[in-house]
Amino acid sequence: MTLDISECKALLYTAVLSDVMDDLGLMSQAMKPFVRPLDEGLVMMGRARTGLYMPVYDIETGDNPYDLEIDLLDDLKEGDVAVVACNGPTSRIAPWGELLSTAARCRGAEGCVTDGLIRDIRKIREMKFPVFHGGIGPLDSKGRARMMKMDVPVECAGVRVRPGDFVFGDADGVVIIPEERAEDVIARAKRKVTGENHTRDELLKGHLLREVYEKFGVL
Amino acid sequence: MTLDISECKALLYTAVLSDVMDDLGLMSQAMKPFVRPLDEGLVMMGRARTGLYMPVYDIETGDNPYDLEIDLLDDLKEGDVAVVACNGPTSRIAPWGELLSTAARCRGAEGCVTDGLIRDIRKIREMKFPVFHGGIGPLDSKGRARMMKMDVPVECAGVRVRPGDFVFGDADGVVIIPEERAEDVIARAKRKVTGENHTRDELLKGHLLREVYEKFGVL
Amino acid sequence: MTLDISECKALLYTAVLSDVMDDLGLMSQAMKPFVRPLDEGLVMMGRARTGLYMPVYDIETGDNPYDLEIDLLDDLKEGDVAVVACNGPTSRIAPWGELLSTAARCRGAEGCVTDGLIRDIRKIREMKFPVFHGGIGPLDSKGRARMMKMDVPVECAGVRVRPGDFVFGDADGVVIIPEERAEDVIARAKRKVTGENHTRDELLKGHLLREVYEKFGVL
Amino acid sequence: MTLDISECKALLYTAVLSDVMDDLGLMSQAMKPFVRPLDEGLVMMGRARTGLYMPVYDIETGDNPYDLEIDLLDDLKEGDVAVVACNGPTSRIAPWGELLSTAARCRGAEGCVTDGLIRDIRKIREMKFPVFHGGIGPLDSKGRARMMKMDVPVECAGVRVRPGDFVFGDADGVVIIPEERAEDVIARAKRKVTGENHTRDELLKGHLLREVYEKFGVL
Amino acid sequence: MTLDISECKALLYTAVLSDVMDDLGLMSQAMKPFVRPLDEGLVMMGRARTGLYMPVYDIETGDNPYDLEIDLLDDLKEGDVAVVACNGPTSRIAPWGELLSTAARCRGAEGCVTDGLIRDIRKIREMKFPVFHGGIGPLDSKGRARMMKMDVPVECAGVRVRPGDFVFGDADGVVIIPEERAEDVIARAKRKVTGENHTRDELLKGHLLREVYEKFGVL
Amino acid sequence: MTLDISECKALLYTAVLSDVMDDLGLMSQAMKPFVRPLDEGLVMMGRARTGLYMPVYDIETGDNPYDLEIDLLDDLKEGDVAVVACNGPTSRIAPWGELLSTAARCRGAEGCVTDGLIRDIRKIREMKFPVFHGGIGPLDSKGRARMMKMDVPVECAGVRVRPGDFVFGDADGVVIIPEERAEDVIARAKRKVTGENHTRDELLKGHLLREVYEKFGVL
Repeated sequence: MTLDISECKALLYTAVLSDVMDDLGLMSQAMKPFVRPLDEGLVMMGRARTGLYMPVYDIETGDNPYDLEIDLLDDLKEGDVAVVACNGPTSRIAPWGELLSTAARCRGAEGCVTDGLIRDIRKIREMKFPVFHGGIGPLDSKGRARMMKMDVPVECAGVRVRPGDFVFGDADGVVIIPEERAEDVIARAKRKVTGENHTRDELLKGHLLREVYEKFGVL
Repeated sequence: MTLDISECKALLYTAVLSDVMDDLGLMSQAMKPFVRPLDEGLVMMGRARTGLYMPVYDIETGDNPYDLEIDLLDDLKEGDVAVVACNGPTSRIAPWGELLSTAARCRGAEGCVTDGLIRDIRKIREMKFPVFHGGIGPLDSKGRARMMKMDVPVECAGVRVRPGDFVFGDADGVVIIPEERAEDVIARAKRKVTGENHTRDELLKGHLLREVYEKFGVL
Repeated sequence: MTLDISECKALLYTAVLSDVMDDLGLMSQAMKPFVRPLDEGLVMMGRARTGLYMPVYDIETGDNPYDLEIDLLDDLKEGDVAVVACNGPTSRIAPWGELLSTAARCRGAEGCVTDGLIRDIRKIREMKFPVFHGGIGPLDSKGRARMMKMDVPVECAGVRVRPGDFVFGDADGVVIIPEERAEDVIARAKRKVTGENHTRDELLKGHLLREVYEKFGVL
Repeated sequence: MTLDISECKALLYTAVLSDVMDDLGLMSQAMKPFVRPLDEGLVMMGRARTGLYMPVYDIETGDNPYDLEIDLLDDLKEGDVAVVACNGPTSRIAPWGELLSTAARCRGAEGCVTDGLIRDIRKIREMKFPVFHGGIGPLDSKGRARMMKMDVPVECAGVRVRPGDFVFGDADGVVIIPEERAEDVIARAKRKVTGENHTRDELLKGHLLREVYEKFGVL
Repeated sequence: MTLDISECKALLYTAVLSDVMDDLGLMSQAMKPFVRPLDEGLVMMGRARTGLYMPVYDIETGDNPYDLEIDLLDDLKEGDVAVVACNGPTSRIAPWGELLSTAARCRGAEGCVTDGLIRDIRKIREMKFPVFHGGIGPLDSKGRARMMKMDVPVECAGVRVRPGDFVFGDADGVVIIPEERAEDVIARAKRKVTGENHTRDELLKGHLLREVYEKFGVL
Repeated sequence: MTLDISECKALLYTAVLSDVMDDLGLMSQAMKPFVRPLDEGLVMMGRARTGLYMPVYDIETGDNPYDLEIDLLDDLKEGDVAVVACNGPTSRIAPWGELLSTAARCRGAEGCVTDGLIRDIRKIREMKFPVFHGGIGPLDSKGRARMMKMDVPVECAGVRVRPGDFVFGDADGVVIIPEERAEDVIARAKRKVTGENHTRDELLKGHLLREVYEKFGVL
């Protein structure tokens, strides 16, 4: 399936995608609200590439603790979104920062979402690289947590994410669109946007909400 | 009782109102700090119009899930503040967004405070409509929660709010001024502002805090 | 020991200080992420002056509830950072606000960090005085909590802070550098910054993360 | 479908039912562990009859706050289990106590599960009436919460429960068996019990866990 | 005022006291359910003697950290209940154990309630001394917390307790009866017990809950 | 080092061990109070054998999800205590139950402590096998979590545990005694027990707490 990602980012938003998935019975697609955009002005859409962390309490000698993390970063493709699952919001580590943002962008990635913390936020903001995070803090993962799996199904901020699912993020949060439903979801969302625009126009003309809701069925 | 709302908004702030109510023994009037302004530059003051939600886990057929919500919105009057109580901060729903902000403003409402989530935040910010919220997220209430009562006493972010009470919000948070105490509270707050201004002036002249506190009794 | 505070503030950041302390086995020096800067553009570094609060439920008559607080403020010295420990994040009080910021700055203090709330945030932002806080809210401490000790070891947002330790805060959070390790920590941090700059440069040239990590050992 | 409830209660247990439902892809059927049996010696199995509460902050005059609660109790049938959903574990009310236990037993009900609190626990224990609860406390629901719906789908301690689903509780907790899967689940659970018995026998003979697991595939 | 404590302990229970105080508008008198009796078979009633703790992070040299605690224990009178407020449930310390139970009983005290932890639970249970606690754990208060005030108003498990208020605890939890309302509360509670007994009798005869509720108005 | 485990279990208890370690500056050795004994009548002491879990969201085909768990169980030695770290108290899985208890006992293990849940509690209690747990629930680990490491340092209920450290559990909770300090800690604890016995005797004779504390220095 080919989606016009640029058009989606220009036309759509998480609220309308969430509503449309609700109507299709997909009611658990919005990440919990502790995940916030680092830059509320950016919109992100791409395919999920997942990494799964475990807590550790030790640094094993003769071992690169970032090994799998580096594999994931170097394997990112054009249009991918890194989904870094650390069992937030209890996570205290910042698995993502400026250097990974730089590496990811150089591979063509669209952005990152994590339920863990991030760091180097001023530099990431300057890059205009979309990062959605579960908090901000300086603690590195080394000796605290480690990526153990990549490209497996994960749960991030309460939502199941499988490699290849679509990740959409904006100022209101992040939703996951299951790959096999994406075409239908996008098509319906475009139609619903039109209804919302009509509703807004009528409300601005002073009509009561009940009249407008009865006409367009959108709230 | 008639209060000059514009003057209050220009002169007063939540901290001084909270202090004055403390002195009167009203010590539970400040909403918990998880409720934040969407726009820290806006000040809101108005009369509470309450809506009370319950969690639901189903959509009943042949039924408009937004029924009472629409009633409340269409009945808002000049100077009202919608107080939308969803049992936050555990609430996952966003009962308020751009369309309700538009409808509320068209009826003359002053703003909204909710312990639930809100959505469409970029558009609400552009409107300069004051909204104080318990988080941001895309999930609609349909099938998750429903307004069951309007214009009843509620608890919102830890504070009891009755219809007609005054709601005051600014960058520091939200306080509720019980209707029958409002005149006294406002009068005292105006006097305390003067004391705080003197204190600041003296401190800026380099006086020690103890001297200044002993002189004005304000901290 | 004499550190060039201005140079440190210009060159260093919490993430690199945290990493360097990790390497030295000091793994509990970063405050929990609920403590955030009021102004993400400011960097703060100075020596800890601590105040320790207890919850109270009453105002004792004939007694100045701010007594020790005033002592601490009036005794602040050039380069001090007030560390106000209120057992956050469960604290509901705002022990710090505009007037204390003004008093502290007049004594030459560098800033304040608290795991409690703060208030008067718009005015503090205008002052460009660095304050790192555990939330924002209007509730004064009077009748709710009281400073019982000053210049004792405290725990603030999960980190032990002793009077004289160095406090460093920026957009990513706050770290505490134990006084007796500060010289070593600072020296190592300066060297690590260089490695991170090389890493970024190589990544921007398009090198894979694995190559760059193997070359500089920095992530 | 007719299940031999007595036989199920004698042979089966929540752990084996949970495992069997896991194998069928029903992985969200066990209530969260804050729900505990009042009497760990009792086993409960029956059909769900649901009640859904909302928080209220007021007592409306001329109104019976227990109205729907009484309807549900008086309509309980032989073999029913009252499922009382109060949005636990944040609930502070005790919607169930000795008098409702007495009324429920007189109608032939099998027991009760609630994510709210219960009270009169010593008397309920003496009755040997199975009650699974989200805590213990003396606060009545009047003026704090109110049953708004009966016989609707609810969520109780993290599990969706529809009227007619089977509720099974024992010392390890509570699981919900969807009505339409019950026959299959029960049949598989009976077979798995046999495997667990063989495993235990072999372990007691001193065999290593690996050998026994490879033989019976049960852990 | 003289109450017959033995009679109250024999006739009354927390649920009926809580209901009666609700009717009088005293709706915040029941401690949160994390406070549990160590022995569910014991009933406790007596006058509050309060101690208020603060968290500390250091042991001051040449100082007895238990000083005020010993004062409170040695000053307990016949019929007193020690109310030990440690800001639970976040408290990690066990300020109460077997030795304090022994000392308290020797002074004639009726029992203890704390929102902190307790230790030596097997020995306290053998003594049949009523203790209501916020958890169980071995950590002493020394170097972690310290009693700073005695005989002041405190908050314990969400309820305000003043010296002299009545504390009543049983298997369902703990309620506080304000001293000046105690006579009225006790008298009403005795009457309500009779109504509950009638209700139970009628339910046991098989009457529907609605009939019985309409007759006695008790649930 | 050889310790007489039976003698320790008969003479010592967690509270005295915790106090003695406090005096030695080991102040983080007591597990958080959410970890409770399944049977308060049992005392457990032995050497830690650790297992570390990670959350997973998938079952990989052609793979035994219990592989490392079985290795750990089959390798337990006389006097070992299985320490099963699942990142409690947020863990929803029950990694330990009756079959593992049976297997562990057959290898000579002393008991188990986990910050996760346990299941089959009635059968484990009948076995009189000491298990300390972070809750009770029926959910198996398969598809939810997986043991990834054995015999590594872990954190369990807030305490660092290394293989070989001593684990001591009783009705008051669980403490960890670092292997290299064990001899000293045990010797001091035996002496302190004597002081506590004297204190109790004097209190029972009616002496004031202050006199007795001044004599023995024990509380």
